[in-house]
Amino acid sequence: MTGQERSEKSECVSLSPMREAVPAPLEYERVCVFGTGDMGRSLGLRLLQAGYGVVFGSRRPHSSSLLPHRAQVLGHAAAAQSAHLIFIAVQREHYDFLVPLANQLKGKVLVDLSNNLRKNQYPEANAEYLQSLVPGAEVVKGFNTLSAWALQNGPSDANRQVYICGESAEAKQAVMAVATKLGFSALDRGSLSAAWELEDFPLQLFPQWRLPLRIAIGLCAAFFFYLLIRDIIYSYITQGKDISFRIMVSLANKVCPIVSLIMLSLCYLPGVLASFLQLYRGTKYRRFPDWLDRWMLCRKQLGLLALGFAFLHVLYTLIIPIRYYVRFKSTERTVSLIRENRTTEFDTTMAWRGDSYLSLGILGFGLYVLLGITSLPSVSNALSWREFSFVQSKLGHLTLLLCTAHTYLYGWNKFLRSSTYKWYTPPGYMLCLVLPSVVLLLKLLLITPCVDRTITRIRQGWERGADQRNPKDSQPLIP
Amino acid sequence: MTGQERSEKSECVSLSPMREAVPAPLEYERVCVFGTGDMGRSLGLRLLQAGYGVVFGSRRPHSSSLLPHRAQVLGHAAAAQSAHLIFIAVQREHYDFLVPLANQLKGKVLVDLSNNLRKNQYPEANAEYLQSLVPGAEVVKGFNTLSAWALQNGPSDANRQVYICGESAEAKQAVMAVATKLGFSALDRGSLSAAWELEDFPLQLFPQWRLPLRIAIGLCAAFFFYLLIRDIIYSYITQGKDISFRIMVSLANKVCPIVSLIMLSLCYLPGVLASFLQLYRGTKYRRFPDWLDRWMLCRKQLGLLALGFAFLHVLYTLIIPIRYYVRFKSTERTVSLIRENRTTEFDTTMAWRGDSYLSLGILGFGLYVLLGITSLPSVSNALSWREFSFVQSKLGHLTLLLCTAHTYLYGWNKFLRSSTYKWYTPPGYMLCLVLPSVVLLLKLLLITPCVDRTITRIRQGWERGADQRNPKDSQPLIP
Amino acid sequence: MTGQERSEKSECVSLSPMREAVPAPLEYERVCVFGTGDMGRSLGLRLLQAGYGVVFGSRRPHSSSLLPHRAQVLGHAAAAQSAHLIFIAVQREHYDFLVPLANQLKGKVLVDLSNNLRKNQYPEANAEYLQSLVPGAEVVKGFNTLSAWALQNGPSDANRQVYICGESAEAKQAVMAVATKLGFSALDRGSLSAAWELEDFPLQLFPQWRLPLRIAIGLCAAFFFYLLIRDIIYSYITQGKDISFRIMVSLANKVCPIVSLIMLSLCYLPGVLASFLQLYRGTKYRRFPDWLDRWMLCRKQLGLLALGFAFLHVLYTLIIPIRYYVRFKSTERTVSLIRENRTTEFDTTMAWRGDSYLSLGILGFGLYVLLGITSLPSVSNALSWREFSFVQSKLGHLTLLLCTAHTYLYGWNKFLRSSTYKWYTPPGYMLCLVLPSVVLLLKLLLITPCVDRTITRIRQGWERGADQRNPKDSQPLIP
Repeated sequence: MTGQERSEKSECVSLSPMREAVPAPLEYERVCVFGTGDMGRSLGLRLLQAGYGVVFGSRRPHSSSLLPHRAQVLGHAAAAQSAHLIFIAVQREHYDFLVPLANQLKGKVLVDLSNNLRKNQYPEANAEYLQSLVPGAEVVKGFNTLSAWALQNGPSDANRQVYICGESAEAKQAVMAVATKLGFSALDRGSLSAAWELEDFPLQLFPQWRLPLRIAIGLCAAFFFYLLIRDIIYSYITQGKDISFRIMVSLANKVCPIVSLIMLSLCYLPGVLASFLQLYRGTKYRRFPDWLDRWMLCRKQLGLLALGFAFLHVLYTLIIPIRYYVRFKSTERTVSLIRENRTTEFDTTMAWRGDSYLSLGILGFGLYVLLGITSLPSVSNALSWREFSFVQSKLGHLTLLLCTAHTYLYGWNKFLRSSTYKWYTPPGYMLCLVLPSVVLLLKLLLITPCVDRTITRIRQGWERGADQRNPKDSQPLIP
Repeated sequence: MTGQERSEKSECVSLSPMREAVPAPLEYERVCVFGTGDMGRSLGLRLLQAGYGVVFGSRRPHSSSLLPHRAQVLGHAAAAQSAHLIFIAVQREHYDFLVPLANQLKGKVLVDLSNNLRKNQYPEANAEYLQSLVPGAEVVKGFNTLSAWALQNGPSDANRQVYICGESAEAKQAVMAVATKLGFSALDRGSLSAAWELEDFPLQLFPQWRLPLRIAIGLCAAFFFYLLIRDIIYSYITQGKDISFRIMVSLANKVCPIVSLIMLSLCYLPGVLASFLQLYRGTKYRRFPDWLDRWMLCRKQLGLLALGFAFLHVLYTLIIPIRYYVRFKSTERTVSLIRENRTTEFDTTMAWRGDSYLSLGILGFGLYVLLGITSLPSVSNALSWREFSFVQSKLGHLTLLLCTAHTYLYGWNKFLRSSTYKWYTPPGYMLCLVLPSVVLLLKLLLITPCVDRTITRIRQGWERGADQRNPKDSQPLIP
Repeated sequence: MTGQERSEKSECVSLSPMREAVPAPLEYERVCVFGTGDMGRSLGLRLLQAGYGVVFGSRRPHSSSLLPHRAQVLGHAAAAQSAHLIFIAVQREHYDFLVPLANQLKGKVLVDLSNNLRKNQYPEANAEYLQSLVPGAEVVKGFNTLSAWALQNGPSDANRQVYICGESAEAKQAVMAVATKLGFSALDRGSLSAAWELEDFPLQLFPQWRLPLRIAIGLCAAFFFYLLIRDIIYSYITQGKDISFRIMVSLANKVCPIVSLIMLSLCYLPGVLASFLQLYRGTKYRRFPDWLDRWMLCRKQLGLLALGFAFLHVLYTLIIPIRYYVRFKSTERTVSLIRENRTTEFDTTMAWRGDSYLSLGILGFGLYVLLGITSLPSVSNALSWREFSFVQSKLGHLTLLLCTAHTYLYGWNKFLRSSTYKWYTPPGYMLCLVLPSVVLLLKLLLITPCVDRTITRIRQGWERGADQRNPKDSQPLIP
């Protein structure tokens, strides 16, 4: 029988290095898998390899030639009775076949593996729907966050953790035991009401990064065209010179720091706005407008993108002396100095200004990197929130201050020269200074002693006008 | 009623994106919150949003207009009877109001949320004190490491984990279930005796970084003034030249590598000293002096600060060719070469020395970064201690060796020139070479075969002189 | 008695800062330690410090002068009866002394701390062997992944986690409670069949890094000698010039990018090969050849090493303008320009090419670093597998594309010049372009719509030829 042969081969899909090393284990116990599709088969194979006895439940138990031959294949009812743990590797639309099995499923643990095609496809989570269909069983959501690859071959990078949730602690314990035996590390995510979260997880593709990424791309495009016109097209039209090669490095090295500085200030602006809103309202017990909420929730992403652009800016700056154009200009300058027999005078102010500019940039970037490191999950989890807010707020504003000062020093005395304003437009770095300057000014206002005192009281629960009406409630934490 | 209105508004404080996505859940169960202050109200709101029924326990159940109207407000005794889980959001000083409630609290789970204003404020942890007041209840410490913001709005960066501890496994299970339902990930930290640790956590502000930071600042200040005098003031006094602009980059680029190298050797010195102490004592079963213990415990922080300074040194070095001063000097040199019609000869030794110096620096910095990456919590947790000690000890000493050689090559033949010693003082890099040279020499001694053998035996439990007295005990691990 | 004295001192070995802060706890409960060797004593001390009562089980209870005096020392049988939890700090060879104690050990929790000297030393894990000797006890494997240092002094970097496994949930709970009381965080790794994994853990020294490291070293050596001959020896033989100083920077800066690019393509080649194999076979249900499996399992390590070499390449490139040789040549060129009264023309094509080359390199390196960051454990755990595969596959191939284009631009028009081929050998960068070009071409083939469709169907479980024979099974996920 060819079908039989093929199924024998299909047992050896394992990529895991474990299998060879494990001394062939005794069969622990029997588990059941409903669903003989790809998902069910992959899981079944893995379970067999880990030493479980596997019973497949199928509508047509006699025609399932693709299933591993070491597995038993029974009808649904018989399969359900043969094991305590039943994996439901079936799409939600077909769940109703379980209703008539209610008797056999009573007291069993059902593991819902299903995923949906898009978010909010159904009013309730698949696992909750399953529970409502078979109220006598203990439904546990789990294993759905793994890729098919991981189900077949064992844990690897983003597939190490199995999230599970469910109402019954024992049922979860049993499922977690299977997960750890398969080599995954299981994480209890609470009751079945967390199932929607687990079902949405595999569908997400950086949902929190979308808005910040769009802002970054928008800013990049806007400043790219602005500078293209001001620098390259202007020079072509007024002087007839083609300096289009500057797009690759010079222009990129202007766009990157500009976008970085704007995004860094966008990262600190909502916090400042929120403080002013609380000051104005005199209470913290009122919801912020929706746009402010959404903004505050993507500050981390804004900051990390800003760091990315700063990193590129640093690299673009450091390769300046290697560029052909720069080396050519430098030689040309020296040659013309000699041929025209001119001398240049060393300008101490220029030296001070240039060195300060570079030094501020370096220190700013150093702090930037520090902020980035503390937002790595494993680092931020190790910090108390007092430490985290110290780094992100105090050091964050210091970073903004250093980078803004760095940009002001770059402009230096060009702010007042009319030649700076080609076609009456300001250069890019002046435009990008507006936002950080505003943020820093507002922050300065907020940390003046009198404003700071009011803000602190509001944050501790004090409300303007509340004292008069109900003085007792202003004493916090007294029963 | 205005009070009523305000409390209705106050229910919508949630910033969490969850709330919209969750299909309005059924009321899971009823929990009780004692304390109607800011902490209690924030928690109550969050619990209501997550679908819990909330009962506030209050001294004046009829005057609590600030509480959310969906919550019930009862007297303490009635509230305690209405739920199994009671959150105590009350300051420790007021705990005695719970003593008369002992009957109602029997068998209940009390979650102690309290924090103190400073460490070691009381002889025992708040939670242990609470347990002693209400011996019939199951006290669980938890939720206190969260900021008020997180309690109101759900998990975010440093507020993702809820640490809990307590004696009863079921009580902890119940509290962990609430934490996961609120979106936090709960971590069991053991029995109630860990409560002091949890209560100290929110108070700490980088306690392990203080000593290393002070050392770094001290070293920076000392070398800054030393070099300021030697380089800038010396030049001003003896030649009348104002080269103060060099403070910003040149001086910074001298202070950074010097401090970095000294701190890196401070990071490896205590290990070497400890080995010699064990060699001298002939046993490992004696406590190290206190200062050595403290020193060893902050090696990681010393190393990371050293890495920070090395990072700044790299940036400061890489921008050298961009500096105005450097470009000016380079042009000036070329111009004078031509005007005076001199020629220069290419010096192969100089090329070898310069390139070796740079190459050693690069390799040293590469290893430095590797050491930094392996001390990230998530990376070091994934290593076995054999791997970790291989990286930190073997590669660490190699880093120190490369960086020291890098500095020696920088000095090169200037060690013997008298002109190097302005005002009879050695330059900074010579001073900073003392410590690493000593550490490397001592380490070299330790890895000579005969010393190494003795050290290894001592570390395996052997004691000098012990064999004679009680030869049987020298056989380790035999019962 | 000197022995007594010494043992008193030996109690104070703690380096942990905890001890001072903990208010001296009451004795929780009594635990037993079998084995009075180094391991047993270290653990006993730590247990005593944490407040446990410790009973040592010994063959000669009256001669154990090295044990802490606060601990009780009894014969094995008496010790076993005095506690519920027994730590077995004895080497596997001596386990048989436990057999006669079967009665006293019935129902007790035995914690197996043992490690082996090498992998696969015994047919079954020590803990499983122990269980087979004492079937009436509950064996838990644990604490063996800690270094002796950590057992004595409490958790530190790579010694924070205690992995435990065993059959009985209550037994594991009890052991985890002890671990958390000692300050470690305990992780349940499943049933006793995971013991071999825990016993192998302390023995491993970067097992997954060996093959990639050997490849890296091999490639480095090969290209080093190839370039040494082509660049330095060639120049010495044909022109008599000694440019050996170029080894330190120029040669290193050729070897690094070459090895980096080859290893990056080695990281993406197996995925492409696997796809073609699946296409050829028309099914995913067949095991890949062993060499391909092993290759795919070390892709992460290959990629990280490639990133390391790219990092060195960046540093080596950025210090170019600081090098003595480069500054000398630049001055020489200017001087000769003037002396010979030549002029040079600015070449826009050169400027475009040079700047594009640098810009592609910078962007490629930026993506490279991004790939590195997402493979940090804490970051990759936070990603869904959809996100992880997006980053590693899409962005990974983009990185390869950028870096390959960067190298092609470096070659530019030298590919066709015969002077490039000294001694009829191609330069290094041409050799290293072969592999990435092949990978990119194959990948391009795979993403053409018709091939892509077939691959996707195969990955979803479709098999060529399977439809005809058993059409119903091709409907995935239907019961």
